[in-house]
Amino acid sequence: MPLNFQVLTESSTTRARLGRVETSHGVIETPVFMPVGTQATVKTTTPHELEELGVEIILSNTYHLYLRPGNDVVAEAGGLHRFMGWNHPILTDSGGFQVFSLGPLRTISEEGVQFRSHLDGSKHFISPERSMEIQMDLGADIVMAFDECAPYPAERGYVQKSKDLTTRWAKRCQKAHIRDDQSLFGIVQGGMYKDLRRESALELMDLDFPGYGIGGLSVGEPKELMYEVLEDLVPIMPNHKPRYLMGVGSPDCLVEGVLRGVDMFDCVWPTRLARHGMVITRQGNMAIRNLPFARDFTPIEEDCGCYACQNFSRGYIRHLLKANEVLGIRLTTIHNIAFLTRLMQEIRQAIVADRLLEYSRDFLKIFGAEK
Amino acid sequence: MPLNFQVLTESSTTRARLGRVETSHGVIETPVFMPVGTQATVKTTTPHELEELGVEIILSNTYHLYLRPGNDVVAEAGGLHRFMGWNHPILTDSGGFQVFSLGPLRTISEEGVQFRSHLDGSKHFISPERSMEIQMDLGADIVMAFDECAPYPAERGYVQKSKDLTTRWAKRCQKAHIRDDQSLFGIVQGGMYKDLRRESALELMDLDFPGYGIGGLSVGEPKELMYEVLEDLVPIMPNHKPRYLMGVGSPDCLVEGVLRGVDMFDCVWPTRLARHGMVITRQGNMAIRNLPFARDFTPIEEDCGCYACQNFSRGYIRHLLKANEVLGIRLTTIHNIAFLTRLMQEIRQAIVADRLLEYSRDFLKIFGAEK
Repeated sequence: MPLNFQVLTESSTTRARLGRVETSHGVIETPVFMPVGTQATVKTTTPHELEELGVEIILSNTYHLYLRPGNDVVAEAGGLHRFMGWNHPILTDSGGFQVFSLGPLRTISEEGVQFRSHLDGSKHFISPERSMEIQMDLGADIVMAFDECAPYPAERGYVQKSKDLTTRWAKRCQKAHIRDDQSLFGIVQGGMYKDLRRESALELMDLDFPGYGIGGLSVGEPKELMYEVLEDLVPIMPNHKPRYLMGVGSPDCLVEGVLRGVDMFDCVWPTRLARHGMVITRQGNMAIRNLPFARDFTPIEEDCGCYACQNFSRGYIRHLLKANEVLGIRLTTIHNIAFLTRLMQEIRQAIVADRLLEYSRDFLKIFGAEK
Repeated sequence: MPLNFQVLTESSTTRARLGRVETSHGVIETPVFMPVGTQATVKTTTPHELEELGVEIILSNTYHLYLRPGNDVVAEAGGLHRFMGWNHPILTDSGGFQVFSLGPLRTISEEGVQFRSHLDGSKHFISPERSMEIQMDLGADIVMAFDECAPYPAERGYVQKSKDLTTRWAKRCQKAHIRDDQSLFGIVQGGMYKDLRRESALELMDLDFPGYGIGGLSVGEPKELMYEVLEDLVPIMPNHKPRYLMGVGSPDCLVEGVLRGVDMFDCVWPTRLARHGMVITRQGNMAIRNLPFARDFTPIEEDCGCYACQNFSRGYIRHLLKANEVLGIRLTTIHNIAFLTRLMQEIRQAIVADRLLEYSRDFLKIFGAEK
């Protein structure tokens, strides 16, 4: 079954909307944050724990799975859902962003990208067609077009060419993608140039994808610039298709993104932060490894229902982190995912109650200050 | 409440017995294997997972907790049970074995042991009295006397002196230990010298401890020698007190130990093995990182009920281990603990059915060959 998206409620004072995405592996309520499971696992967690946290969809990385264990292995296992034991929606990226991040290890041509593996230096080539093949092997519910993501800052000339290439590649992806139970999203590029963004969006809308990624943001530009680009871009994007802001996941950006009409987000940030011993709280981020927490026997957050907060103290978690015990980063990861899952729930409730603007204002009093 | 031990059933053909240990934090069925939670966590697992695995008691290490986070911190948290969220029995060792393992970093005198921390080189001194203070702070249900563990091989003269010192220290421990809700076990030493072992046992039995550790075995000697020492020693130990063979935990040694009358075991081996990518199966140990498992989509063991075997394939776990994903060592750890927990259950059932000898023979056909 291909993707079915419905807008259920629209905020009267902002661009935010409550939506519902139906996929072959279940329903996602939007706005949604997708935790990242780069190597077919959301680092440190089990699928069961993610279910308990209320996670409805995760993202996994095509580049990493292509190199290891290999998309053929995943296909032989019956696809990514079965391989990793996650029987809920999955989105895979195209591999483009990771390949471009390799810097000097890759060469871009019209045909595709040649690169060397970060694991063993071996030579590889990914084209739009190859990305589709790999993603069809992986079998995610939502797959992404192979795009070029321009860096920031970048010259207008470069970004223009890159955007044009992304459109040509999007057409090739659409042609190559033939799995009915997957939905292929196009990716809007154009850097920080608003007119190029609009061009990109219109070109992709001509191809009528079932959903659209917004790529090339949160790549080092000031957050205000990202918000401006979104404010200019989102109004011309179709109302009845999901909008996915790629690689964005700090609490303030999630709220600001929803206010500007974004439905889906993903980011390694909350789980990576957790592995560095940082936990997200209503009072801002907290470096729980620090000495003041050694004899603090209260939970990370009193009112959080996650397994970490219900069972363990800051002092204990600090001890685990200092002692390099795996349970430490398990607990911080669980808490950070719980925090964002709860944030998105609250956002959805605020949209239904049409009080998102007030909710956001209160929330950003703390998180807006941390920009 | 102090410890209450009952022998429920005795094997008619071996020294094995089924027992029941009551402690302040619940009941333990013996023979039992205790997973090791060195730093107040059984590496990679949550207390909840251990409960689900049927673990009834864990061991934690006094030396490590004294250094980090500090026994005062644990006491302030309300004791080890509350600190780590494990509301079931705990046994702490005395710190002796760890301190002696420091080699050149420690000096032994009649008074106690001076040593330097393996963490930061700072100077410390632990005496029998200090070990009791620390263990009373930690608050485990069963605590161990501060002993000297002679290495293997060692001269008779050295072992004799070490055994004598251990007896004198046991008296001092008994005097210093004043917590009613904890039970203090003496530790039989004497190396591989059977007469010294018997002397040690008799000296400690004069002190009438509620249970006895057997220390200084599994320190490098051939397994047959350990079995011989046990065969000679156990018959003179009191029948109505639990016997705890310290630091032993490979499947064959567990079975051989039970046959010789041992009630309790602990070892880091099964969990450490797991972190090195080795899983224990009825067919022997399996290096699941190896290439042949890449496309093996069957569970580690078909008939194992653990979370790892019920939900994931060898191929997926291999992928996780190769990719250094925490979930990999979580799953191998869960499986290895499940294997040993099930083994001990089967042993207890075999004692009840008085068919332990046959059970052991079948089991050791595989595991005896791996010695």
